[in-house]
Amino acid sequence: MTAYDNLMDHVRETEALAQVAGRLGWDQETVMPRGAAPQRAEEMAAMESVLHARRLDPHIGAWLEQIDASGFDAVAQANLRHIRRSFDRASKVPAQLAARIARVTSQAQGIWAEARAADDFKAFAPTLAEVIMLKREEGQALAAGEDIYDAMLADYEPGTTAAQLDAMFGALRPVLAELRAKVRDAQAPQRLEGTFDEAAQMKLTRQLAKTFGYDMTRGRVDKAVHPFSSGSGLDVRITTRTNRVDPFNCFYSTIHEVGHAAYEQNIDDAYLLTPLGSGVSMGVHESQSRIYENQIGRSRAFTGWLYGQMKDAFGDIGIADEDAFFAAVNRVNDGFIRTEADELQYNLHVLLRYDLERALMGNDLQVSDLEAAWNDRFEADFGFAVDKPSNGVLQDVHWSVGLFGYFPTYSLGNVYAGCLNETMRTALPDLDSALAQGDTSPATNWLRENVQTHGGLYEPREVIERASGRKVSEKPLLSYLTAKFSDLYGV
Amino acid sequence: MTAYDNLMDHVRETEALAQVAGRLGWDQETVMPRGAAPQRAEEMAAMESVLHARRLDPHIGAWLEQIDASGFDAVAQANLRHIRRSFDRASKVPAQLAARIARVTSQAQGIWAEARAADDFKAFAPTLAEVIMLKREEGQALAAGEDIYDAMLADYEPGTTAAQLDAMFGALRPVLAELRAKVRDAQAPQRLEGTFDEAAQMKLTRQLAKTFGYDMTRGRVDKAVHPFSSGSGLDVRITTRTNRVDPFNCFYSTIHEVGHAAYEQNIDDAYLLTPLGSGVSMGVHESQSRIYENQIGRSRAFTGWLYGQMKDAFGDIGIADEDAFFAAVNRVNDGFIRTEADELQYNLHVLLRYDLERALMGNDLQVSDLEAAWNDRFEADFGFAVDKPSNGVLQDVHWSVGLFGYFPTYSLGNVYAGCLNETMRTALPDLDSALAQGDTSPATNWLRENVQTHGGLYEPREVIERASGRKVSEKPLLSYLTAKFSDLYGV
Repeated sequence: MTAYDNLMDHVRETEALAQVAGRLGWDQETVMPRGAAPQRAEEMAAMESVLHARRLDPHIGAWLEQIDASGFDAVAQANLRHIRRSFDRASKVPAQLAARIARVTSQAQGIWAEARAADDFKAFAPTLAEVIMLKREEGQALAAGEDIYDAMLADYEPGTTAAQLDAMFGALRPVLAELRAKVRDAQAPQRLEGTFDEAAQMKLTRQLAKTFGYDMTRGRVDKAVHPFSSGSGLDVRITTRTNRVDPFNCFYSTIHEVGHAAYEQNIDDAYLLTPLGSGVSMGVHESQSRIYENQIGRSRAFTGWLYGQMKDAFGDIGIADEDAFFAAVNRVNDGFIRTEADELQYNLHVLLRYDLERALMGNDLQVSDLEAAWNDRFEADFGFAVDKPSNGVLQDVHWSVGLFGYFPTYSLGNVYAGCLNETMRTALPDLDSALAQGDTSPATNWLRENVQTHGGLYEPREVIERASGRKVSEKPLLSYLTAKFSDLYGV
Repeated sequence: MTAYDNLMDHVRETEALAQVAGRLGWDQETVMPRGAAPQRAEEMAAMESVLHARRLDPHIGAWLEQIDASGFDAVAQANLRHIRRSFDRASKVPAQLAARIARVTSQAQGIWAEARAADDFKAFAPTLAEVIMLKREEGQALAAGEDIYDAMLADYEPGTTAAQLDAMFGALRPVLAELRAKVRDAQAPQRLEGTFDEAAQMKLTRQLAKTFGYDMTRGRVDKAVHPFSSGSGLDVRITTRTNRVDPFNCFYSTIHEVGHAAYEQNIDDAYLLTPLGSGVSMGVHESQSRIYENQIGRSRAFTGWLYGQMKDAFGDIGIADEDAFFAAVNRVNDGFIRTEADELQYNLHVLLRYDLERALMGNDLQVSDLEAAWNDRFEADFGFAVDKPSNGVLQDVHWSVGLFGYFPTYSLGNVYAGCLNETMRTALPDLDSALAQGDTSPATNWLRENVQTHGGLYEPREVIERASGRKVSEKPLLSYLTAKFSDLYGV
């Protein structure tokens, strides 16, 4: 056994344990009896403690030192890159600080949930201030003199800097805000109305999952409060939800999660349970979920097919033709909530959070001023005022659990999806005629071969640039959104 | 932190991890996508490796040495007894032997399954011989000069010796074989015939689970190929199965598993995730599942109520009245398979296995002679001949996975149930009128308070003797079975 073999055995076993811990999360959200919660907390803590110890195991450092990587192939080099990064990261944060962050964020989530229910930001503010102080301390340990926010970003999107995001997001915001204002003044299309049997929604949603290439022999679809995808490799499960008056929520949540799940399912089998065996970053992950959901799933061609499926499933849905259905699917509505936002407004939600969390981390914004800053920015970008904190600054769980540097990956994923879509459309000139028949396979095959199969082999930006054959830029996304919504709204 | 505190923290975390591993097993049998199997094997192996290392952690030995237990209460003393026994047991078996047993039995299970499918004992014999050789070696390591079989028994029923079993089983066998022969010559009652909707079976089976006190807020009922109960504490799940022509299989499997699950659910909350927080032995566990299933569930009073439930669920079931239904539920049929056997014949199946495995372990029987020994004994006790190995020596998985000393706990559980039933009936003279109304709570409360709540506080035999107020003996079981079947068959 060489040091590399020993290292990989250790890492593979750790990854298998991480899959088990992830599946406990799936179980909790889908099938766990509600009275099991206190015991489940103990079980999760025990798994986390095992995983934490294994990730900091001093053997890893010793093996890494012993390995002479000259002559290693690209796969072995990539494995070492991931292992080294994760070990260095874990080693840089003092154990006491890590434990304190774990304790405070675990309490903070409950305090946030109560404050949101009570619509009382002040009840959450002191806790948020403590989380921010601890995360800044962690950021300093990680950054070692460099930019704190860049160090945080590296947890979710290694290789991307805040300066790059500033440039892209700075170009996105004014164009999107202006387009959004024009659309708001234009005539809105008909919306979908009526009620839709929830069992029939689940039946159609399972069919949609298969339509987008989700492999049911290595996955399953269940209902949960929040849609999510869970697991890597041979066991990747998704959840969705149903709402009697909003079947689009069910269908597009499913397609979104299938994008995440297909990425995990389509990684080269040889990478199973290694650092290359899961999606390489949050941004690349989101590029897959968003291109499935939007550029494919909300396209005129695909919605034309879906219109027929909905009539088959529900009878008359009160919409006259495919064009009206396409407009209803893509209708731009006033709304406060990021997770319910349409394609046009979604990135404005994310950019707002990015700028605010950058300011918080840079000590340029105090928690006491956060609610006002949120509300001012929201009104400026969306054209109407936040009515209550649960529709504003308290709507997302992220900050309470210490996720800083995570929000921008949502919009970065959309930027990536824009780049991929532009190239894919050129490579597949007949894609729309397949989509109009409910055949997504040209698109999903193209994404599998060009993006998904590589798993963690390339760095995030590299995988997008290899697949799209161009430098990452916000321009394709902007052109796509501008064309789509100008056309739909005649603006 | 005292040494005892450190020890208990370690043990509690290990127990939480063991619950996670157990739930992976549940997942595999109920909801896992079939394509996930190869990855699941890696995940299970990783969990087993973590658990194995924790159970052999040298800190345990050091803490045990440091602890001065004088002045400890009964709970702490019982915790130490369990921990010491389990640590000593793990430490006695050489690591190489343990690894070899794990490897061989994992392969042997597949070889057994193939041999059973092909009805070819010779294809399994060499593997079984290897398993037996390794288990004898392990038994020698555990017995340290004492009886090997007693050492094996201690894994499942500490405190019970083969000499005690010989005495009890020796008294059971002739009486049961004679009664069985008489019943065989008598007029058999009507059997249940027809087909029964499987969704309606599941609905009634869930109602039966609640009727027997199963707490659905801390559990759930799913379908699986083999019925089982899984987990301890706040998350105890059961499975059942349906068969269109045999609804009794579904209902009595459920009641049996509810007996196991209620035992786990009803242990004192203070013992959660400690060595006292799960059922104390296989025999005591089986006493609960069998008394729920048989002495309560197959009683004249309870079947009278069940008769009405079945008519409500399925309409006319072709049985005229409660007495005929009681006779149909308890009908004694010729059959080869232990798991399908009625109350009267079940122990004859177990005693056969016990005598054969004792002889195998004592080197008094060779694997080459096992099939013939099985067939001779079967014909002697049951009155007809085994037709093929899958109905005989190849029917049970146990020996292939190295379970020797396990079979007798099934009959010991029945003996315990007999003792408990006799005392419970005296304590609850009006029990039958409650059961006739579908109210099992006087019985399940009595069992909870006298047996289940104690978890691992007392030794197995002690918990039965405290609850029943008498020495463990086969006599109550024999009287109960003789009275029931003599009466039913007029013999």
